[in-house]
Amino acid sequence: MTTPNTVVNVGADLLADAVAEQAVPVTRVDWRPPMVGTEADLADVAADPRRRTANEQALAAMLDVTATLVDVAPASEVLGLQRGEFLHAGPPITWERASGPMRGALMGAAAFEGLVDDPEDAVALFESGANVSLEPCHHRSAVGPMAGITTPGMWVWVLEDQASGRRTYCTLNEGLGKVLRYGAYAPDVIERLHWLADVLAPLLQKAVRAAGPVDITGILTQMLQMGDEAHNRNRAGTLMTLRDLAPAMVTSGFDAPDVAQAMRFIGGNDHFFLNLAMPACKLALDAARNIDGSTMVVAMARNGTDFGIQVAGTGDEWFTGPSQQVDGLYFGDYGPDDANPDIGDSAITETAGIGGFAMATAPAIVRFVGGSVPDALNTTRRMHEITLGENPRWSVPVLEFQGTPTGIDVTKVCRTGILPQINTGMAGKLAGVGQVGAGLVTPPAEIFPKALARLAELAVSRTPS
Amino acid sequence: MTTPNTVVNVGADLLADAVAEQAVPVTRVDWRPPMVGTEADLADVAADPRRRTANEQALAAMLDVTATLVDVAPASEVLGLQRGEFLHAGPPITWERASGPMRGALMGAAAFEGLVDDPEDAVALFESGANVSLEPCHHRSAVGPMAGITTPGMWVWVLEDQASGRRTYCTLNEGLGKVLRYGAYAPDVIERLHWLADVLAPLLQKAVRAAGPVDITGILTQMLQMGDEAHNRNRAGTLMTLRDLAPAMVTSGFDAPDVAQAMRFIGGNDHFFLNLAMPACKLALDAARNIDGSTMVVAMARNGTDFGIQVAGTGDEWFTGPSQQVDGLYFGDYGPDDANPDIGDSAITETAGIGGFAMATAPAIVRFVGGSVPDALNTTRRMHEITLGENPRWSVPVLEFQGTPTGIDVTKVCRTGILPQINTGMAGKLAGVGQVGAGLVTPPAEIFPKALARLAELAVSRTPS
Repeated sequence: MTTPNTVVNVGADLLADAVAEQAVPVTRVDWRPPMVGTEADLADVAADPRRRTANEQALAAMLDVTATLVDVAPASEVLGLQRGEFLHAGPPITWERASGPMRGALMGAAAFEGLVDDPEDAVALFESGANVSLEPCHHRSAVGPMAGITTPGMWVWVLEDQASGRRTYCTLNEGLGKVLRYGAYAPDVIERLHWLADVLAPLLQKAVRAAGPVDITGILTQMLQMGDEAHNRNRAGTLMTLRDLAPAMVTSGFDAPDVAQAMRFIGGNDHFFLNLAMPACKLALDAARNIDGSTMVVAMARNGTDFGIQVAGTGDEWFTGPSQQVDGLYFGDYGPDDANPDIGDSAITETAGIGGFAMATAPAIVRFVGGSVPDALNTTRRMHEITLGENPRWSVPVLEFQGTPTGIDVTKVCRTGILPQINTGMAGKLAGVGQVGAGLVTPPAEIFPKALARLAELAVSRTPS
Repeated sequence: MTTPNTVVNVGADLLADAVAEQAVPVTRVDWRPPMVGTEADLADVAADPRRRTANEQALAAMLDVTATLVDVAPASEVLGLQRGEFLHAGPPITWERASGPMRGALMGAAAFEGLVDDPEDAVALFESGANVSLEPCHHRSAVGPMAGITTPGMWVWVLEDQASGRRTYCTLNEGLGKVLRYGAYAPDVIERLHWLADVLAPLLQKAVRAAGPVDITGILTQMLQMGDEAHNRNRAGTLMTLRDLAPAMVTSGFDAPDVAQAMRFIGGNDHFFLNLAMPACKLALDAARNIDGSTMVVAMARNGTDFGIQVAGTGDEWFTGPSQQVDGLYFGDYGPDDANPDIGDSAITETAGIGGFAMATAPAIVRFVGGSVPDALNTTRRMHEITLGENPRWSVPVLEFQGTPTGIDVTKVCRTGILPQINTGMAGKLAGVGQVGAGLVTPPAEIFPKALARLAELAVSRTPS
């Protein structure tokens, strides 16, 4: 870790206080013991001869991916979703254990799909479980922000790693406030989903097919030089996407008023690019899956009840714990009592080294998620303590172009007790409310020792006794 | 001045070195004597009872202006330019004293206007002086980047301060490289000027009239949170302008291929917004003109031979000295011997507190103009030493949202010897070459004592002896 703008202080607070009084920011690197009960597992994993090479391989595979936007298509076609199948954010969840915003989004999506006329009627449908099923987006190469509900009739962005042909998918962003992904299901929410599927998505399909492939990894490179961290600030990314697709939208043959409305919708939603950043991150991280011995995290995802991680060396297994409350800023009269715990697949951005990990490059975000500018700078520096390397394509100008901290290492998290920093939107905890704010959150600490235990078990099982 | 991330050190280098070794950035505030020969004038101006109030009034008037884009129109209509009249950047200049890029741009513009068939034939025309005349853009409420040549057939952005009805003007940006404003005049340069006048500008006129007024001051607010300093980085500003005008361009009735080509041209030129930033800055600064007793600079401009400033308390008088060589990065095989001295009205951005003054918010710019990231941060801090105040609408997130340093004070410059920092494009010194690089430059020091002397003279003349 380089610390160009700080004094590093270990232990003695006297010096730290003295320097702080001179108005120099001080990074207190609190040395902490490893997480309780992890010593033996840390030793077993450290002794695994495959670990170093496996982690180098995982990081390199991830950094090697260039995500390109190649198509926009109905989920029924490209994800093979059937009527009654619902994808959702996070690790697996049942209707019974689902939080308010997850239920609200499922209810709205059932109405959008025509399974019920009134979203309220969907409660009985999901309680019965007849002809409906829930499955994580991640199990179908997809990701979804907040509730992440994806159904056959919704259209999705199609991203491809041209070198391998692998693809990932994500729905189109609906905007902020009262929207399905935050658990809202009022008539205007459903109506907007129909406009997305009937007008915007087919128009974008034609534009992407004419103008693409669009280099989404490259747009992310530029965004990080333009004050976006690509989780809760996606302004520059949204504008660059509009720039890249606008000429082809104009010549698409669609009616001018529809094209103009589509441009107004995209330009009016600073978060539009989030749904491109997320599958780009997943596409990179999926390249690091299933590498025996690697302790690198390949997914962090929340369903509003559970927070789960997947690790390169442990296949498709989820290590889960309770989603945490978010600490942040609230819209209007909302307060902490109105907020649901952490939800959404969007922590895939932090898993890939941006979002909360790149807050140093987006100091203006503190006005949206809370915290201070020095906090934002220090967060990025701190994340270098728990990551395997830096991303040379995604750099932070204000930190003298240092690459973003990339490849969360389960052993480093357990050894330091430093948890990944996520910034996120906050959903109302009741179905139907929508967004109530945005803030900062971490995973539940216990999921990392759980993953470590499994990594240790696999390491030991491979070692001849 | 706040110094949240620095240790301030005056004098003794031992402490500074010790702290620097601990990797803390150190701002060495070199105390310097006032500029040579300015003591008596500084005393006279300091004794002027009008000064404080006049400067408060000048700064407030400037900060109160909101620049809105209201129209795009031919210069012949809105600037009253007649055939043979050429506006140029900087203080007044003759053909005889004009530099290579200024001459090249005049030659190309003469061909564009149809005064000659071949740009080379324009040399004789300008040498004879028959039926041609040169006048600064600033004398007609206009500004122009680099050579700044503006002729009757060129179209200009029209910006308005809605409160006062005052207006300023600037041509449309042609892109980078071989373009008229850098002194190039090859056939493709002239052809592009015709496309701007025949297609792009009339299309933008229709779009601006339908979608405007567009809040350019507000776009500048956003840009400063998106890594632009609005002189040599205008990426976010360009994208936001495209976003704001695109829907109205689509419904303008122009043919789809022309609309798509216009969008590609705007989106393909990250500097497109510069020609909106400049008149927005001039519109603000013009509100501070002609305030007796004010020592605030209201214009800095260069014609490629002379660098001139105008001051609030000294009317339309120019205080001039030789344009300096630019220190920076060169395109391709070009080097210092190929570069013309500093040229253009674009230093109006620094005069208004952005550009070089706001480099802290655009650290990525060091890859274009040279220098280091700490230099960029320190430059903004240093400019607070020579300015009257801060702009609450234009803030720098990484400096904890401190307002940009605004209102250059002639007395502070003379008292500290700190010169305004400008970043700028570099024109080839030979007519016809175009851009050769970009870098950093300051005004010639002697123009500030010259302005101070005049301010002192006026102060004394008002004081009963």
